[in-house]
Parts: sequence; C-alpha cells; structure tokens
Amino acid sequence: MERLKSDGIPLHYQIKQQIRDLIDSNTWQHGMQIPTELELCESFGVSRTTIRQALQTLVNDGLLERHRGKGTFVCRPKLEQPMTNVYSLHRFLLSRGLTPETRVLELKHAIARSHTASSLRVDAGAPVWKLTRLRLGSGRPMAIDTSWLPTSIWPQFDLQDLEGRSLYDILFTRHGRRVKRAQEVWEPVLLDSYEAEILESKQGSPAFLIERTTYDEADTPVEFTKTIVPGDRMRFSVNLEEDTVTRKEQA
Amino acid sequence: MERLKSDGIPLHYQIKQQIRDLIDSNTWQHGMQIPTELELCESFGVSRTTIRQALQTLVNDGLLERHRGKGTFVCRPKLEQPMTNVYSLHRFLLSRGLTPETRVLELKHAIARSHTASSLRVDAGAPVWKLTRLRLGSGRPMAIDTSWLPTSIWPQFDLQDLEGRSLYDILFTRHGRRVKRAQEVWEPVLLDSYEAEILESKQGSPAFLIERTTYDEADTPVEFTKTIVPGDRMRFSVNLEEDTVTRKEQA
Repeated sequence: MERLKSDGIPLHYQIKQQIRDLIDSNTWQHGMQIPTELELCESFGVSRTTIRQALQTLVNDGLLERHRGKGTFVCRPKLEQPMTNVYSLHRFLLSRGLTPETRVLELKHAIARSHTASSLRVDAGAPVWKLTRLRLGSGRPMAIDTSWLPTSIWPQFDLQDLEGRSLYDILFTRHGRRVKRAQEVWEPVLLDSYEAEILESKQGSPAFLIERTTYDEADTPVEFTKTIVPGDRMRFSVNLEEDTVTRKEQA
Repeated sequence: MERLKSDGIPLHYQIKQQIRDLIDSNTWQHGMQIPTELELCESFGVSRTTIRQALQTLVNDGLLERHRGKGTFVCRPKLEQPMTNVYSLHRFLLSRGLTPETRVLELKHAIARSHTASSLRVDAGAPVWKLTRLRLGSGRPMAIDTSWLPTSIWPQFDLQDLEGRSLYDILFTRHGRRVKRAQEVWEPVLLDSYEAEILESKQGSPAFLIERTTYDEADTPVEFTKTIVPGDRMRFSVNLEEDTVTRKEQA
C-alpha cells in the first residue's frame, strides 16, 4: 500500500478502527460471539497483544462485552436519537417501540447556587425544587435528569404527575406556561459510582452530560437540568444543512 | 429542608454537583488552588472519604487536576463551540484568538470497508485515501480527524495543502465541488492510549467521537470522518428554538 506520510499509527489503533467498522456496519451483529483472539490474530496478521489492546478499548466504549468463560460478544446497538428532538425522550422511546417510564429519585426544596442561580436568572440562595429522575425505556435505564426548578414558577408538584407526564406538559397544563426555547451544553464525562449503579452500567464508562436551560414565551428560565446519558445506550445524530456547512473556511 | 421524596442520593454526588457549580460559575477560577480536603470537609460538613470521592470524579472529568505535593487546581475552562459550526474548527479557533494548525499524521491509500464504504456509497474494497490529522489551537491539541476520502473525488493530495487549508477549501478550489450538507453521529468514548498520547491527555479520559459524512451539491458523499475531541478541551453548545421544543409531549 502506498503510504505518502505516516507517523506510525499503531496497529492496535488500526485494528480497533476496522473492528468498529464491522460493528457499525452490522457485519458483526448484536449478540454475536466474535472470533477468538487467536482467530483474530490470524485474520488480521497481528500479535495477541495487539488484538487484546484493540478489543479492550471497544469493551471500554460499550461496543463489546466479555462474558466470563464464554467469550466476547457484540453489545446491543445504541438507540440513535436526532439531536433536534433531544427533549422528547418520552416520544423518542415510544417511536422506537419502547415503553417510557420515569422514576422520581428525589424531590426536595433546595436553594439555587451560583451557576444554577445565574442560569435560572434568580438570586443566589433563591428557593428552587431539586428534582432527580431516572428515565427508562421498557425497563432499561436511559438517562438521569437532575433539575433545578424555581418555586416561583413551579409552586407545587404532584409525584404522580411527575412519574406520568413530562415536565413541559405539567408546566403547560398546570401553570399555563409554554416552553419557547432551550439552550444546551454538551460534554463527555465518565459515569461515577452512583450514576453507574442507578443506570445499571459500569463506573468509568463514557457518558454524555447535557446541561439544559429552558425558557418560556416571556423568555423566563423555567428549568435548569443536567442529564446524564450513558454512551452504550444512546447516540445522537444531527443534520447540518448547506447554510451551516458553507459558512466554513470555504466561504 | 423539606424532602418530598428521596431514594437517598449519596452525599458525594451532591457535593460533586455543588463543586461543579462553583467551577461552572467561575467562582472557582482557572488555575486557582482549591481548599484542602480538610477545609472542604469542614465547609460541607462531610467526611474526608466523601470529599475525596467527589473530587476524584471531577479530576476524572478534567475539571480539576492534582499537582503532586502542591494540591488540587481548577483546570483551564473548556472552549465552547456552537454545534452548528462544528465544521469550522479552523475558524472557531481563530475567533477565540487561537492559531489553528493541522499536522498530517498519516496519508495513505486504503480500501473502503463495510461501514465506511456504505457511508461513502462506494463498493466495499473501493480505493480511498485514509488521512489522519491532528488539529491544534495555538499549539494545544484539540482533535484527531481520521478521514476516508474516495480517490474518485480526490485524485491526489498535496501535503502542504493539507496542513495549510481546510479539506473543503481544497475540495472547492482544486476539484470544483462544494459541500452541501453533512450528517453527524455523536457518541461519548474514552481516549485510548494512542489518542491520549497524540492529544497530550490521559488514557481513559472522556471524549466525543463524532462521525461525519459530508455530501456535495450532487449529494455525492465526499468525505467520511471520525473526529475525537477530548472532553477537557471543548464542549459544544446548541440552541433549540420554539418549533423544535414545542414538538414535544406538549404538542
């Protein structure tokens, strides 16, 4: 193979890319037991250490899983949610044939601290509800939402409401406010011990942290939420149209 | 504090959220040495184990860093890039007063495999360029781009071109094709040993993996790229307007 320039991309990295390709293309399907390390050594023509290194990173990223004494298997494919609809986890799960469910882990009175307060445009120390919810799809944990909600906007909550309906639905039907816009910030994080336990995942596995501030029609912040989405459950797709793309160096 | 429902959110998790808030609000600023564990125990009224657990997760996520024998410090804030402009890393870096730089790590002839081939809508085994680039901002590694580029669209490459200009700029000026749209899929991953080394980061730290297929005006795929962005360097913001948000359960 002609090589114009190479600073030596390590073999395990190239193998990892090739195996990911097999998984992404569904050539290696969910539930399939992958070839043994020895078979992979032969088919890729590399050492066992190289294969192991490649496989380990794919296990860490939640694409492969090891069953002790049985072998290595391809994980369930991630649900792919369009990023524009990131709010509608409920509807998204329904659209994929899953039953959405919400469990309230905690609802308590709290005070808005520095960043939370400024996001909600309330004074530091202002009273808020702190609401932590586990979101599930057909019994499988998909996300943890921790919300700070000004009591000035949400005078009271009904636990049954919270487990049966979306926050925005409650906001509209109970308090007559419609959601107008939202602002999000996305970061990758590692699941900590608590998140891993609640999400039935592994501590240290990769996840999205999505920070969201939602505004009503008067542009008053009604909600500040941090959502943790484990990386082995969901991925997000986004379409960028001409006018976004051509606003590049090209322009 | 009135508590309507609590399944016992652990203290270390609550402390972590409060400390994150201090960092996000810039109350704890970049470069600042944070209070000692003992001081934090006192001010939060919790045990040393609890404080340690909270701090460790923030170190893992790249918000705090430990300097041996000196203490724990607040990391440099992440650059916040609007997600609509995700393509224009070059221009984004310029807009933040940083000098964009591209280093070609590898450029070689390869063949398109299963997922890559179908993304590029070429036959499996079709000839492509495999191009790996390190993108830097004022000398700081910001992303690794691995691209598969059909040779039918990109007959040849000039290394100097690649280090000095954007791919889309080359596509337009050398080959007369304009980028029309792109499709991306976002996942969180862990940096593997190679990525960590190249990006001057820590193995196992959280990162974005962004898979992108770019199309020209004839809707021919011109590029398939996987980008790794370390989580301690950048975060992405997105604005969701009314019509996206109201297309929720509310509707």
